[in-house]
Amino acid sequence: MKLDLNEQPHRRYNILTGEWVLVSPHRTKRPWQGKQEKTVTDDWPSYDKACYLCPGNERASGDINPKYTSVYSFKNDFSALLEDTPSTTVEDGLLVAKGEKGICKVVCFSPNHSLTLPLMSVPSIEDVITIWQKEFDELGAIRDINYVQIFENKGALMGCSNPHPHGQIWSQNSIPQEAVKKGEQQLRYWQTNTKSLLGDYLKQEIKANERIIWQDEYFIAVVPYWAIWPYEVIIAPKRHFQRITDLTDKEKASFAMAIKVITTKYDNLFETSFPYSSGIHQAPTNGLAYDEWHLHMSFYPPLLRSATIKKFMVGYEMFANPQRDITAEQAAQTLRSLSKTHYLSS
Amino acid sequence: MKLDLNEQPHRRYNILTGEWVLVSPHRTKRPWQGKQEKTVTDDWPSYDKACYLCPGNERASGDINPKYTSVYSFKNDFSALLEDTPSTTVEDGLLVAKGEKGICKVVCFSPNHSLTLPLMSVPSIEDVITIWQKEFDELGAIRDINYVQIFENKGALMGCSNPHPHGQIWSQNSIPQEAVKKGEQQLRYWQTNTKSLLGDYLKQEIKANERIIWQDEYFIAVVPYWAIWPYEVIIAPKRHFQRITDLTDKEKASFAMAIKVITTKYDNLFETSFPYSSGIHQAPTNGLAYDEWHLHMSFYPPLLRSATIKKFMVGYEMFANPQRDITAEQAAQTLRSLSKTHYLSS
Ligand SMILES: O=P(O)(O)O[C@H]1O[C@H](CO)[C@@H](O)[C@H](O)[C@H]1O
Ligand SMILES: O=P(O)(O)O[C@H]1O[C@H](CO)[C@@H](O)[C@H](O)[C@H]1O
Repeated sequence: MKLDLNEQPHRRYNILTGEWVLVSPHRTKRPWQGKQEKTVTDDWPSYDKACYLCPGNERASGDINPKYTSVYSFKNDFSALLEDTPSTTVEDGLLVAKGEKGICKVVCFSPNHSLTLPLMSVPSIEDVITIWQKEFDELGAIRDINYVQIFENKGALMGCSNPHPHGQIWSQNSIPQEAVKKGEQQLRYWQTNTKSLLGDYLKQEIKANERIIWQDEYFIAVVPYWAIWPYEVIIAPKRHFQRITDLTDKEKASFAMAIKVITTKYDNLFETSFPYSSGIHQAPTNGLAYDEWHLHMSFYPPLLRSATIKKFMVGYEMFANPQRDITAEQAAQTLRSLSKTHYLSS
Repeated sequence: MKLDLNEQPHRRYNILTGEWVLVSPHRTKRPWQGKQEKTVTDDWPSYDKACYLCPGNERASGDINPKYTSVYSFKNDFSALLEDTPSTTVEDGLLVAKGEKGICKVVCFSPNHSLTLPLMSVPSIEDVITIWQKEFDELGAIRDINYVQIFENKGALMGCSNPHPHGQIWSQNSIPQEAVKKGEQQLRYWQTNTKSLLGDYLKQEIKANERIIWQDEYFIAVVPYWAIWPYEVIIAPKRHFQRITDLTDKEKASFAMAIKVITTKYDNLFETSFPYSSGIHQAPTNGLAYDEWHLHMSFYPPLLRSATIKKFMVGYEMFANPQRDITAEQAAQTLRSLSKTHYLSS
C-alpha cells in the first residue's frame, strides 16, 4: 500500500544519531486549550546597569567586566564543571559514577544589551564565530579537555536568565552522549564509503530541493528530514571538515550570513524574538583526527503554533519516542517563504 | 584522588538505558533570575460543563461520554497514530521513513473533574490500574500492536490541556526507542546473569537505604541513582515480572499505595499540584516472552526550586548530555522527610 508522508503517521530515521522520530502530519488540526506562554516584549535598553554581562559591570564573582566593544568571554561564575575534579571511577555493584572535569565559559555576543543575533550585522556575527574559534582552540588544547560544546539558550522559554546576547561553552573530559552517537554514525558511514555522511546527505537535499531554507557556495541551511522540533534547522558547510577552526575566511562570512538569515526568519515567523537552543557539533579535541566528522550547527526552537504556543516534549516523547505534528517539508516551506529582512527593521 | 559525589561534578551511568547523566552538586547555590511559572490555583469544580472529559459531556468527535462513575477510556479524538496506516518503508538514499500504525486512547481516572491521583483513595487508584490492565491486555492482543505505552502528562507545565484527571495510552506497531534501549540493557544482563537487572538494582537500593522513599512487601519507590529530573522517582515491584497484567491482587493494592504516597509527597514538596509526566515501561506485546523485562513506572517532574521554578533541559542537555544539580540522594532525603498526608487534607 502507498504511504503518504504528508498525511499519514510515520517514523523517520535520523542518520546522525541512529534514532527515530514519530511524525503525525494529520494532527495539526488539533485545537489547543493548554498552556500559553506570555508574549515577551523585547524592549531592552542598550545598557542595563543591573546586567552582569554588560561592559564595565560587576559579576557575581566580584570581577568587573572590561568595557568590551565587540565580543567577550569569561569563565562561568556558576560553572557546572570544574577543573580540579579527579577523574576517579566510583563503582559499587550496579552503581557507577565517574568524576568529570571541565571548564565552562560565557560568551557575550555584543556589548549592546538590546541586541540578538538576527539584529546584529554579518561582520559582528563573524566576530562571534571568531571568539568561538578562539575558545575551541584554547580549550581543546588543554590536556584533559576532550570535547568542547558551544551552545546558546535564547529566550526565557529556553531557561535563559539574562536577555543580554550571549552563549555558553561547556568543555569537558569525556565525550558527551549526543556527540558519541553522532560520531559513531559518521564513523560507520566513513568506514564503508570513505565519504562524509552529512556531506552526502546535503548533496541529496540540494538535489531534492524540498527542505532547503537558504544556501550559497559554502553553507546550506535545511530542515533535516528527521527534524524533531517544529522548526528545527541544521546549518552546515558544503565542504567536509571537522572543526570550527577549519573555516576559511569566505566560509566564515557565509556561516555568519546563514546564522543571520535563519534567526531573522525565525523572528519573522511569529513576529517575536524567537526562542531556541542552538549548538555546534564537531570533532572531539583529544588529539585524534576524526576524519569522519562533519561540523554542523543545529537550532532547536520550541514554538509550534504562535509566539505563545510551544510543542511539549512530554509523556510519550519522554517514555517512548520524540514526536512531531507538522512535517519537515511543511516547516521548510514556511521558513523559506519568510522574508530575510527582520520585521523590526522595516 | 578521592571523589566526593556530594560535592564534585560527576557522571552517573543509567543501567536501564545505557546512557549517562552529568551531576553538578556544587551548583545548587546558583541564583535564579530566569523564567518563573505562574502558580496554578487548583480550585476546579467537581463537574465542568465545558470539559470534554466529564461524564455526560460531548467530545470534539461529537460522541457523548457515558455517565461513568469510576474510570473510563475511549479512543483519542486527535490520535497521533491511526489504525489504517500501511507499514510501508519509504527509502530514498539517506532518507528513510516507515509507516507507523497504532491506536491512541484516553483514560479518565475519575468522574470528578477536581481530583488528581494524590487526592484519590487507594481503591480508586486500583480502579485506574485495572483499566490500564484491561487496555494493555486488549491493545496488546491486536495483531499489529507490538508495544503499549501508558503515560500521564499532569499539569499545564507538562503540556496537559485539561485538568480533568486523565492519562493516555499510545499503542503501536514498532517498539519505541526508550523501550528498545531498556530492553537491550535488561536482555544483556539477563543473558549474562539469568537475573533481573532492575531486581538486582532494587536489592542493592534496599541494602544501601539511601534513595528509598517508600516500600512495603511488594513495591518500592526510589530516586534512581542516575535520575535526570530533580525529583525523578521509579516505582517498581520487588517480584520480577514483565507486564501490568501479571500483578496479584496484593501487588495491585501495593502499587496503588505507592502511587498515592509518591504523588502526595510531590504535592507536599512545594504545596502545589505537582506537575509531572509519568509512564509505565513493560515488555512489548508482540507475543514473545521477554523474560528479561521488569515492569516499572517512572515519574519525571520538572520543578526544581519551588512551585514556579523548573529545571530547563535546554542547550547543553539537548546537544551534549542531560544534567542535574541536586544529587539523587539529596532529592530522596527531601522526599522521604515529607508527610504522606496531603497538605490539603489536614
Ligand atoms: O495529547 P495531548 O494531551 O493533547 O498533548 C500532549 O501530550 C502529547 C503526548 O506526550 C504530546 O505530543 C503533546 O505535545 C502534549 O501537548
Ligand atoms: O547556565 P544557565 O544559563 O544559568 O542555565 C541554563 O542553561 C544550562 C545549560 O543548558 C541548563 O543546565 C540550565 O537548566 C538552564 O537554565
